[in-house]
Amino acid sequence: MQALVSIIMGSTSDLPVMEAAAKFLDEMQIPFELNALSAHRTPEKVAEFAKGAHGRGIRVIIAAAGMAAHLPGVIAATTSVPVIGVPIKATLEGIDSLLAIVQMPPGIPVATVGINSSMNAAILSAEILAVSDPSLYQKLLKFKEDLKKKIVKANEELTQVKYDYKVD
Amino acid sequence: MQALVSIIMGSTSDLPVMEAAAKFLDEMQIPFELNALSAHRTPEKVAEFAKGAHGRGIRVIIAAAGMAAHLPGVIAATTSVPVIGVPIKATLEGIDSLLAIVQMPPGIPVATVGINSSMNAAILSAEILAVSDPSLYQKLLKFKEDLKKKIVKANEELTQVKYDYKVD
Amino acid sequence: MQALVSIIMGSTSDLPVMEAAAKFLDEMQIPFELNALSAHRTPEKVAEFAKGAHGRGIRVIIAAAGMAAHLPGVIAATTSVPVIGVPIKATLEGIDSLLAIVQMPPGIPVATVGINSSMNAAILSAEILAVSDPSLYQKLLKFKEDLKKKIVKANEELTQVKYDYKVD
Amino acid sequence: MQALVSIIMGSTSDLPVMEAAAKFLDEMQIPFELNALSAHRTPEKVAEFAKGAHGRGIRVIIAAAGMAAHLPGVIAATTSVPVIGVPIKATLEGIDSLLAIVQMPPGIPVATVGINSSMNAAILSAEILAVSDPSLYQKLLKFKEDLKKKIVKANEELTQVKYDYKVD
Amino acid sequence: MQALVSIIMGSTSDLPVMEAAAKFLDEMQIPFELNALSAHRTPEKVAEFAKGAHGRGIRVIIAAAGMAAHLPGVIAATTSVPVIGVPIKATLEGIDSLLAIVQMPPGIPVATVGINSSMNAAILSAEILAVSDPSLYQKLLKFKEDLKKKIVKANEELTQVKYDYKVD
Amino acid sequence: MQALVSIIMGSTSDLPVMEAAAKFLDEMQIPFELNALSAHRTPEKVAEFAKGAHGRGIRVIIAAAGMAAHLPGVIAATTSVPVIGVPIKATLEGIDSLLAIVQMPPGIPVATVGINSSMNAAILSAEILAVSDPSLYQKLLKFKEDLKKKIVKANEELTQVKYDYKVD
Amino acid sequence: MQALVSIIMGSTSDLPVMEAAAKFLDEMQIPFELNALSAHRTPEKVAEFAKGAHGRGIRVIIAAAGMAAHLPGVIAATTSVPVIGVPIKATLEGIDSLLAIVQMPPGIPVATVGINSSMNAAILSAEILAVSDPSLYQKLLKFKEDLKKKIVKANEELTQVKYDYKVD
Amino acid sequence: MQALVSIIMGSTSDLPVMEAAAKFLDEMQIPFELNALSAHRTPEKVAEFAKGAHGRGIRVIIAAAGMAAHLPGVIAATTSVPVIGVPIKATLEGIDSLLAIVQMPPGIPVATVGINSSMNAAILSAEILAVSDPSLYQKLLKFKEDLKKKIVKANEELTQVKYDYKVD
Repeated sequence: MQALVSIIMGSTSDLPVMEAAAKFLDEMQIPFELNALSAHRTPEKVAEFAKGAHGRGIRVIIAAAGMAAHLPGVIAATTSVPVIGVPIKATLEGIDSLLAIVQMPPGIPVATVGINSSMNAAILSAEILAVSDPSLYQKLLKFKEDLKKKIVKANEELTQVKYDYKVD
Repeated sequence: MQALVSIIMGSTSDLPVMEAAAKFLDEMQIPFELNALSAHRTPEKVAEFAKGAHGRGIRVIIAAAGMAAHLPGVIAATTSVPVIGVPIKATLEGIDSLLAIVQMPPGIPVATVGINSSMNAAILSAEILAVSDPSLYQKLLKFKEDLKKKIVKANEELTQVKYDYKVD
Repeated sequence: MQALVSIIMGSTSDLPVMEAAAKFLDEMQIPFELNALSAHRTPEKVAEFAKGAHGRGIRVIIAAAGMAAHLPGVIAATTSVPVIGVPIKATLEGIDSLLAIVQMPPGIPVATVGINSSMNAAILSAEILAVSDPSLYQKLLKFKEDLKKKIVKANEELTQVKYDYKVD
Repeated sequence: MQALVSIIMGSTSDLPVMEAAAKFLDEMQIPFELNALSAHRTPEKVAEFAKGAHGRGIRVIIAAAGMAAHLPGVIAATTSVPVIGVPIKATLEGIDSLLAIVQMPPGIPVATVGINSSMNAAILSAEILAVSDPSLYQKLLKFKEDLKKKIVKANEELTQVKYDYKVD
Repeated sequence: MQALVSIIMGSTSDLPVMEAAAKFLDEMQIPFELNALSAHRTPEKVAEFAKGAHGRGIRVIIAAAGMAAHLPGVIAATTSVPVIGVPIKATLEGIDSLLAIVQMPPGIPVATVGINSSMNAAILSAEILAVSDPSLYQKLLKFKEDLKKKIVKANEELTQVKYDYKVD
Repeated sequence: MQALVSIIMGSTSDLPVMEAAAKFLDEMQIPFELNALSAHRTPEKVAEFAKGAHGRGIRVIIAAAGMAAHLPGVIAATTSVPVIGVPIKATLEGIDSLLAIVQMPPGIPVATVGINSSMNAAILSAEILAVSDPSLYQKLLKFKEDLKKKIVKANEELTQVKYDYKVD
Repeated sequence: MQALVSIIMGSTSDLPVMEAAAKFLDEMQIPFELNALSAHRTPEKVAEFAKGAHGRGIRVIIAAAGMAAHLPGVIAATTSVPVIGVPIKATLEGIDSLLAIVQMPPGIPVATVGINSSMNAAILSAEILAVSDPSLYQKLLKFKEDLKKKIVKANEELTQVKYDYKVD
Repeated sequence: MQALVSIIMGSTSDLPVMEAAAKFLDEMQIPFELNALSAHRTPEKVAEFAKGAHGRGIRVIIAAAGMAAHLPGVIAATTSVPVIGVPIKATLEGIDSLLAIVQMPPGIPVATVGINSSMNAAILSAEILAVSDPSLYQKLLKFKEDLKKKIVKANEELTQVKYDYKVD
């Protein structure tokens, strides 16, 4: 099995946040790998990782980091594989991490998702793979349908909430 | 010629910012279309646009909007084609637009780039298409090499700057 | 009984915040309905809801959402019934939600209240209905009087707080 | 002619921003009045204004102020006529004014619109009056249709923008 | 005993924060009063309070409020007794309250202290009274000396902290 | 003539902002002095200034500074004369300066006014002196009355603004 | 033993944050001292401390403070020994303290590290001493290598995390 | 001549901001070099630069960058030479750049100065070199004295400003 998506995080302490991404990829049956490498503590490892990714068959990279979060940008600097950035909330409610990931200079984009939004990163990686994989595209449409059904069902449960002037 | 990337903006007043995206796609020879539709003023047109995009052959959508920027999220809600969001700076230095685009709820990601960073949105769209287009991937690598050369050349020009204690 | 006010929230997880709105309407004997529909997960349901609201007799809509909160704006885009937006605090202390609701483009207003201020949204909806309902206007004046009395009473209780140099 | 909407601003220096509101009301043929009274410099005048508004036939108040903007809240404290607050950008990009208007305590709502969004305030006032005025509701629907047409036309003009790889 | 300082807060829920002010005034033997009146819920009471303060012998007013905190500004609008504003932290870490108090328009100052800094408000009120009360000025100098001694003593306790390379 | 108020600024470049304070004191016939001393570049001069102020007859100090504005706090640390802080807008819209002045630790208050609000600082200094100067208190009441009259007159000028549906 | 680094904090309540700095210096066998002196409560002690530091052999100063944090800047004003500032998180998530330390005026730099980042302050002080101490430079290189090894080991532990589609 | 300080900036467009640093080093007769290399566009060049710096005799690095400013952190990750970070104001008033530089993770400090404060970066680099260069330390003390004199002279010029109630 060849990994198509690589999840990389700045520290294993980010794992609890990133599990939602791993679970989504698992559910979508997309082979992935899981790495923890720091742009600041292991810069050569990160450079090596980024340079080798495309050759190893990686097609999308999900990179998560907190604070002055450089990991996604540093990887994007070295590969043309699309890089999805996940700002991790560690300090300042995560706004430092969000700005340090999203405000990339012209030439080197990072596809940024919301603070701690690892599941959205995984969905986005699937959407990118689905550009050339029609059956995965169908799976994603079905996933969206299921989301709808859950909401519609939750809405129905609101009929249980009773007030004198509430109209059902 | 079939458009692969669709650029959509909330208002034609966003065109000066979005031109860098159009130019990059043109340079990369990626067929694209250009639209201006407002999530708030023409909601049905936007819904129609989003629903029809995949069937029409669109593989990536770049959506730009300012202020309470809903356009990228509203499109992402209706299609599984990857949506890249470009926050336009109109008020509050663009922070309102950035947050209104990037902080999407679980299930519906928008790949957000920096404030007014339309060129990065276009590069990202090319990277996504390049996942299944090896020759485009080569073009992107070459584009990155050219960026490097420009920087290296600019660096060389710094040798022209003269100070008594500057070492060249 | 015909609902005049429709409370809609992006997710049933917003219910604990929105209960204060339901209670106030109940107290004012204003018939209302309670819905949970997501602008991002059930966009067609939301469009349908917004289009049908006026015809069904809804005169004010209270829409609550968090993060990149699009629900109030998306509804306002489709109806001319006044829409009151309640920013829900989920991330970033709620500032993302506030900006994503209040900073609407020209043409499509949302009447925004404070972060998590669901009771104020309900009072505002009553004030709007009271424009053409003199007896409701009287009820609201009485409600304000009661607020005053509570404060005046609380003030009196401060006479119980004792310090050597405190003058009563 | 009896004014239904009262526009009040903290200072005549806010007039250039508030003109869009006056023009919209004029266009919709809604009788209105225009006042400049400061919550801080003329508190009794403001209290008098707020107390008398309903009796004088005013049905909606639009209050604009900048910096530590107290005017909308101070008026809302004294009347049950719906108060729409317009944060004026004077310092700090207008964020001080937005927070000072929108973050009202429980019991006293202000219907806040975006920074400097005086036209949206006027539209909202019309929507509120339209709750009991079906012909005004029709006018508002037509206004929304006209907005759409402008956008659709602007979109068509984008076909004039020419790139080699742009598909029309 | 005639109160010289009046502490007023928007709600009795602010009492735990404001107790430090009461205690400091008690310690300095400055007669004071304690009130809870809301600028929004009891506007006439507040206006009455502000108008009567000087005549009743009040020489400094300490006004505390949270969120869209109007109380200090509303009082300052009606009296020329110096008003000290204490921003209470209720939402948004207190930044809404700070801006709503400090950013007053030209003509009506509020002497603002830090978020929840009720003791500093009380010290400031004492410094103001001390302008014409030399013995109070001496007490304040002594209070500052005592603060110094506490710090110097705490510093000495640091000699107890032991590390191999710590020099005492 | 003995100065009662001392205006001190971190740099002579702050003079254009501080002139409004000087003019107000001049108008109120309050003797004052004008100094430029930097907490960072001339710390001993500032310490000397602060220590000598009370003895020299200074009763209120107005201290203005920008960026990491330490001047007001450093002076407050050394005297018990009330210190009014004026945050000067130099970078970050002045929010750095505001926070560096207002968020003082317990024990050492600075009476902070709005960003660049030098006139309010001067009014506040006059209010403080008026605590023990009844004729100055009368002047301040008159100043407030004049402010009112200006607003009332400006309001009257609004009757000149003509719209078809504007009611005068 | 002569202290080379002086750690100074605004209050002994900062000690739990600053312990990481003390431990790092201990580990690197760099003699240091530990002080608690407040720029606001003990200004003369701080001035004395700063003036004497270089003569006493101190080569780097680490100064930590919260809120309107003046301590690092006040020390930097009085010595040319490099001053490292540590913003302590006390209010507003520490952003007040960060801005009050980092935004120093031209002429008086403070080498600022992240909020609560006392260990980084200590590492920086070691890097500064290592400029003229080759064996310390070697220790720091080794410290960096050890950091790498920890990350690499943590990365290996990720192989324990099992998912069906995870590739090891 | 061997460079001791290396100034590196993300782009030659940062040169106008960084000139103040070059001028200061020139004035202090500290040999330096000037480079423009981008962490994102020329990552290998930056890695090479950082690895070689110490061996080439560089003792302090000043790194300037804007937006999601990674350059200082990326260099600090690869060398134990002290790195001074200068946040360049390009977007969001420079707050993105400040946070992306200062909020480094434990282990890899960057000595951050204020937004655009290149002169302070140069002074700090001189202070660091002066730790082992007593004659440079004397030059810095003299530089501080000269700063004082300028301020004192500016203060004297204030005596020229004339008001009726100004005391000289």
